[in-house]
Amino acid sequence: MFPNKGIASYCQECGRCNAIPVDTLETFDDNLVEIIVDEVIKTICDSGDRKKPVSKVPFIPLGVSNHHVHLTKDTFEKLFGTGAELETFRELYQPGEIAAKQMVTIVGSKMRAIQNVRILGPLRNYDQVELSLTDAIQLGINPPIRNSGDLKGAAPLTIAGPEGSIYLKECAIIANRHVHLPGKIANNFGVQDGDFCKVRISGKKGTIFENVLVRVNDAWRPQIHLDTDDANAADVRCETNVEFVGKM
Amino acid sequence: MFPNKGIASYCQECGRCNAIPVDTLETFDDNLVEIIVDEVIKTICDSGDRKKPVSKVPFIPLGVSNHHVHLTKDTFEKLFGTGAELETFRELYQPGEIAAKQMVTIVGSKMRAIQNVRILGPLRNYDQVELSLTDAIQLGINPPIRNSGDLKGAAPLTIAGPEGSIYLKECAIIANRHVHLPGKIANNFGVQDGDFCKVRISGKKGTIFENVLVRVNDAWRPQIHLDTDDANAADVRCETNVEFVGKM
Repeated sequence: MFPNKGIASYCQECGRCNAIPVDTLETFDDNLVEIIVDEVIKTICDSGDRKKPVSKVPFIPLGVSNHHVHLTKDTFEKLFGTGAELETFRELYQPGEIAAKQMVTIVGSKMRAIQNVRILGPLRNYDQVELSLTDAIQLGINPPIRNSGDLKGAAPLTIAGPEGSIYLKECAIIANRHVHLPGKIANNFGVQDGDFCKVRISGKKGTIFENVLVRVNDAWRPQIHLDTDDANAADVRCETNVEFVGKM
Repeated sequence: MFPNKGIASYCQECGRCNAIPVDTLETFDDNLVEIIVDEVIKTICDSGDRKKPVSKVPFIPLGVSNHHVHLTKDTFEKLFGTGAELETFRELYQPGEIAAKQMVTIVGSKMRAIQNVRILGPLRNYDQVELSLTDAIQLGINPPIRNSGDLKGAAPLTIAGPEGSIYLKECAIIANRHVHLPGKIANNFGVQDGDFCKVRISGKKGTIFENVLVRVNDAWRPQIHLDTDDANAADVRCETNVEFVGKM
């Protein structure tokens, strides 16, 4: 039901189960991504030519991050049983990354819970729960806004699986807005790893997002990650391209 | 427990029950509002003087709109019984407007529900449910983004009260971002009723909101209304002031 190719971001469309309607996937395949990437590079290279139409601005595909967890092998086995393996629900847009079939329930200190929180793989060397502020308010916790992996002072949560549970004192963050860029496109945009930039989504709820962290790696495909609060504020779903406005 | 004065916007802080912590209210009283209003006017009047510090930008208090309903007298009596009266839970920031003690449950076409949705008074001559996109996704409905009162093509919902319920074919909207301004401040900002403007919230999740509808009425106090998706995207709660960036 879910092709391996296409815009395989983690979507909120069908009741937060992370599935994407097939017709959406079919209209946004790898060829289209290549065309967009080519267009981005061409537009940047042409940017000195003021005779070009104003509409030729650089766009980057959007990935909307619903709440999700990253787990270590130890924690995963504690929750799903010794020897359990992460199973692929579908491949994500970034090469080698997957949404797993396995999901967990997270419980905050006020004992409020969110069910069906998907594990994203592969397994990592730290446990991390990424939430929106809306999720945090629902759970009654106060996680900091952080880069992925920066967990000092992160909020505590219990993560429950079918075979066990774990209480993690520092695991929950609201992830920084960030953009994945291969080196060539980052150079053309005039940004480098660790910079912050602005991006814009137009429409009735047009919004400019500031402080978007630039992350550069040649293994990545260009993609901007916003959380569900950001995406819902701007009234967009996954099949959106975001305008790169410039460095902060 | 809830003073009548102070920043009496409808808040999401305590599990979406619309109550505001007293300590928040006590730090943001009418005097402070007056100081801010005076500062806005002074700053606008001084705006030609480039020697002024850059930080002297015009700010307007933020009101975060949680989901809520407006009802006609007929609908209110259908839900709460003939002769029922709207009771004041607390006064809102705009003179004469109240959050009522009475709440309803709303149910979408997929039979998903949101409970404890507060009625805002006074009663009106139309029934309207204002939601965020997050609420709409939770309900499984697709309301349009609209100005208050513009209900042609609005989404259907059932509204249930303790004494009855009603199915409304066109009632649910995602309210346009909008700013309430008295005429004098609107003039100083260089905007008039029906214009659209941009506003900015700074911080780690700094955000510029476009297409904010300007509504002018001398009976109003200056206030920007954003929904919970907008506020959560920018990581702000009620006790925030928003920078007026300019006309669209």
